[in-house]
Amino acid sequence: MDGQFITFEGNDGAGKTTVLNRIIEILQPKLGNQLVTTREPGGNLVSEKIRNIIMNNEMDARTEALLFAAARREHLVRKIIPALEQHKLVLCDRYVDSSVAYQGAGRKIGKKQIADMNQFATNHVMPNLTIYFDVPVEVGLKRIMQHRTNEINRLDRQQHDFYIRVHDAYDEIAQSNPKRVVKVDATKPVNEVVANVLKIIKQRFPQYFE
Amino acid sequence: MDGQFITFEGNDGAGKTTVLNRIIEILQPKLGNQLVTTREPGGNLVSEKIRNIIMNNEMDARTEALLFAAARREHLVRKIIPALEQHKLVLCDRYVDSSVAYQGAGRKIGKKQIADMNQFATNHVMPNLTIYFDVPVEVGLKRIMQHRTNEINRLDRQQHDFYIRVHDAYDEIAQSNPKRVVKVDATKPVNEVVANVLKIIKQRFPQYFE
Repeated sequence: MDGQFITFEGNDGAGKTTVLNRIIEILQPKLGNQLVTTREPGGNLVSEKIRNIIMNNEMDARTEALLFAAARREHLVRKIIPALEQHKLVLCDRYVDSSVAYQGAGRKIGKKQIADMNQFATNHVMPNLTIYFDVPVEVGLKRIMQHRTNEINRLDRQQHDFYIRVHDAYDEIAQSNPKRVVKVDATKPVNEVVANVLKIIKQRFPQYFE
Repeated sequence: MDGQFITFEGNDGAGKTTVLNRIIEILQPKLGNQLVTTREPGGNLVSEKIRNIIMNNEMDARTEALLFAAARREHLVRKIIPALEQHKLVLCDRYVDSSVAYQGAGRKIGKKQIADMNQFATNHVMPNLTIYFDVPVEVGLKRIMQHRTNEINRLDRQQHDFYIRVHDAYDEIAQSNPKRVVKVDATKPVNEVVANVLKIIKQRFPQYFE
């Protein structure tokens, strides 16, 4: 596969999606259909049906993890791999690292167990580059809560500890995968984060910008 | 968990379900609600919704394997584990071995990969006893095809090889797990197979028959 696969990862409130949208605006005019941006379930029918089950039913944490992995698998084989085979630059909002951080660490299923199970789902297709949007948990939570300032103090301890575990897991993923994962300081103003991310992408994959 | 978990496994046409129904008829009057018989999806809503997706959509083989495992997980935690916690005797038609044989070997995803992924789903809850209904592939296929005798010769080579791989996988599972798996000769007349299976269950778990 000659394309390049880039994932955007980080805690809720890290600003991933805002930055990703700005990057699309900037790169789209130059790259045209060489640029593919996606996120699970990625518009395929099977993954959407799986997502519907997850969203509308109470279930065991491992059942949920298996369903996320099934939706990921279908998104990967229907959308990401075909794009990579056509030499495209694929930007994907969340992938395996999210499951390791949120389900493995956050929900305490176990990081290695979630990683191994997702290796089955992806058959070891991992991103060429992962941009990790790093913000302190408090900053991320404040951003999420910005429209609900009166509630911030009522965020319960359990939820706070959950996000701490997620953040610690991302830190560990970044440390364990120094070639794949590049950390950006997501507390900076959006323009600055966008510029940093663009610089990283252009340095790593100059072939798309010649 | 003080209950006992028994699974029925084997190729299509081995007669598992026929024998299981006869055994229920025989044991039910004696055991009453101490006996639980089940099969995936086992009547729980989430597993049934997952099954509907599998049955009604084309999808990648690994996606399907993950969905089967998700449905299995929910069936296990909602139905099997609660019954075992109530000291019941649980008879289940197909479980992890079916996925290893059919998806791992039959569909060539890999037996170890399917087994490992299912260990995530079951969190290592395996049967106390597995009855393996062994029939030569040809015999099983003839039984399946009995209402379509003119078509038997048209069973394509690919399908035949699939069932050979499934049968070989069951043989290997039986050899590798001599304490858990008991093989019965399922070419014998139904009455004889029923008697053999009952004998095995009573010998292994006399506490239910005192």
